[in-house]
Amino acid sequence: MLHSLIMILDWFGICVFAITGALVASRKQMDIVGFAMLGSVTGIGGGTIRDVLLGIQPIFWVEQPAYLLTCVLVACATFFFAHILHHRYRYLLWFDAIGLALFAVTGADSALAHGASPSIAVAMGVATATFGGLIRDILGGESPVILSQEVYITAALSGAIVFVGLVGLGASQDVAVVMGFAAGFGLRAAALHLGLTLPRYRPKNGFNGDQ
Amino acid sequence: MLHSLIMILDWFGICVFAITGALVASRKQMDIVGFAMLGSVTGIGGGTIRDVLLGIQPIFWVEQPAYLLTCVLVACATFFFAHILHHRYRYLLWFDAIGLALFAVTGADSALAHGASPSIAVAMGVATATFGGLIRDILGGESPVILSQEVYITAALSGAIVFVGLVGLGASQDVAVVMGFAAGFGLRAAALHLGLTLPRYRPKNGFNGDQ
Amino acid sequence: MLHSLIMILDWFGICVFAITGALVASRKQMDIVGFAMLGSVTGIGGGTIRDVLLGIQPIFWVEQPAYLLTCVLVACATFFFAHILHHRYRYLLWFDAIGLALFAVTGADSALAHGASPSIAVAMGVATATFGGLIRDILGGESPVILSQEVYITAALSGAIVFVGLVGLGASQDVAVVMGFAAGFGLRAAALHLGLTLPRYRPKNGFNGDQ
Repeated sequence: MLHSLIMILDWFGICVFAITGALVASRKQMDIVGFAMLGSVTGIGGGTIRDVLLGIQPIFWVEQPAYLLTCVLVACATFFFAHILHHRYRYLLWFDAIGLALFAVTGADSALAHGASPSIAVAMGVATATFGGLIRDILGGESPVILSQEVYITAALSGAIVFVGLVGLGASQDVAVVMGFAAGFGLRAAALHLGLTLPRYRPKNGFNGDQ
Repeated sequence: MLHSLIMILDWFGICVFAITGALVASRKQMDIVGFAMLGSVTGIGGGTIRDVLLGIQPIFWVEQPAYLLTCVLVACATFFFAHILHHRYRYLLWFDAIGLALFAVTGADSALAHGASPSIAVAMGVATATFGGLIRDILGGESPVILSQEVYITAALSGAIVFVGLVGLGASQDVAVVMGFAAGFGLRAAALHLGLTLPRYRPKNGFNGDQ
Repeated sequence: MLHSLIMILDWFGICVFAITGALVASRKQMDIVGFAMLGSVTGIGGGTIRDVLLGIQPIFWVEQPAYLLTCVLVACATFFFAHILHHRYRYLLWFDAIGLALFAVTGADSALAHGASPSIAVAMGVATATFGGLIRDILGGESPVILSQEVYITAALSGAIVFVGLVGLGASQDVAVVMGFAAGFGLRAAALHLGLTLPRYRPKNGFNGDQ
């Protein structure tokens, strides 16, 4: 039953990321094909990099084209309904948080399933959760804001560490998934609700950081 | 004989894309090594991503280094003759349209040959035709204009769909190649000649699209 | 013994590149997780692309997670000590030159070891030495300066050509490594010390290069 829940959340995460890619396309006033491309790249980009790095072949959406087709459909729908979603931008951030937390766990899980060590599994969780958005920002000509929203990457990192740590401690897969998701989503939710940030690097007084 | 034609057009497309990469280098007033790198990345970048996504090893230019060497030579020649090509920029756009339409077909054909499903083959055709130019723009510090020239991606998409569709309908390989190329090139030619565009996303009145 | 020296220099190069990634993070005033991500991407990015292009699985840092962990630790240390390193920015450029020259040789060596042809080995040396910095600049929102600092890519190219050429001429591995490293580092050192550049492309008079 939990496996079904993961599947549902996985598809939900892909759809939400595809929407965020389409929203960047809407900000650039692209046409519907631009929406489809940015939506697809954002929805399946993180998992694609994970599969390439782990040497998993065929890549998940090459094996199951439904992933790609779903991204295209969601992005095209956003083309027509983006004005509604914009008004609900705040809700989208919360959906995005769900996708982030979920991909951190499923990315790490996929790496462990392919024999990766714990530290690599954590890295793959972070990569799966964040690289789709990075590619979206670069292709869309946006500043890669993901790097300046520290609680974004940190939330993915936390979720992946909790999941991999619990698996390593012998916890059941179910518990590890739930706790990892809760850690990642909880931290991101705190960031969204309370404005939680980590300290940023500050150049020392008298020093010009732009040299 | 058609196979020979495809080979010729394939090499032609790679050369034309290498020239476009070198022209971006000329706009940034790079040195000849910068020309060689941007030209190579543009000429073989799209096919490289296709091969990596499909798990094809060795990658085509690793197996046949002549592809890479040709890109380097063409880019270096552009370093010395770019002022001539600039004056013929309009011709270049037409050569580029040929490369775009060809790569859409050959990229999809390569995917089908490796057992990909029709939708994946279409995606690979689009990726092969467009990603080289995307990498060129990003490395060259240009805005990824490919995403704002909607008939560019759309032309690649159309060519790939026609090719894959005809193959799926049982048409001979020859017919599918010619029709797919004609669809992609024709649409792009119409765009260049008539300024054809698709409708862009417009924010609704009273809404700030930049939120 | 030379093998040990290469190992030491290899780790040294990864650490130095991780520091340069962290320094870009410091310029963007990121938090410590941003430092860790940019440092890791810069330190292991070039070798990752090389392994993916050559179809080497598992990728070096997936097989030996110590590479990734080292990048993270070095980047985190930079978060706290960057103000010291900034004051020694000039030294860092020299360390970076060592990493560049070393990666050009080890990247080419890795390609030859996997049966690549000489021209591909040279390309892989250049890719290993330069792509990490390219990804760093793109993710960090910097202009990809690597393309405008011509002696940077050219130094990597020279080192890789000398190494592959000497191996092809039957020189011992030791001699080829030392001479290749000397060529790459020497050229980069001359560039840093003497301001060595290659001629850049200049548009002809009466021509607007920005068309």
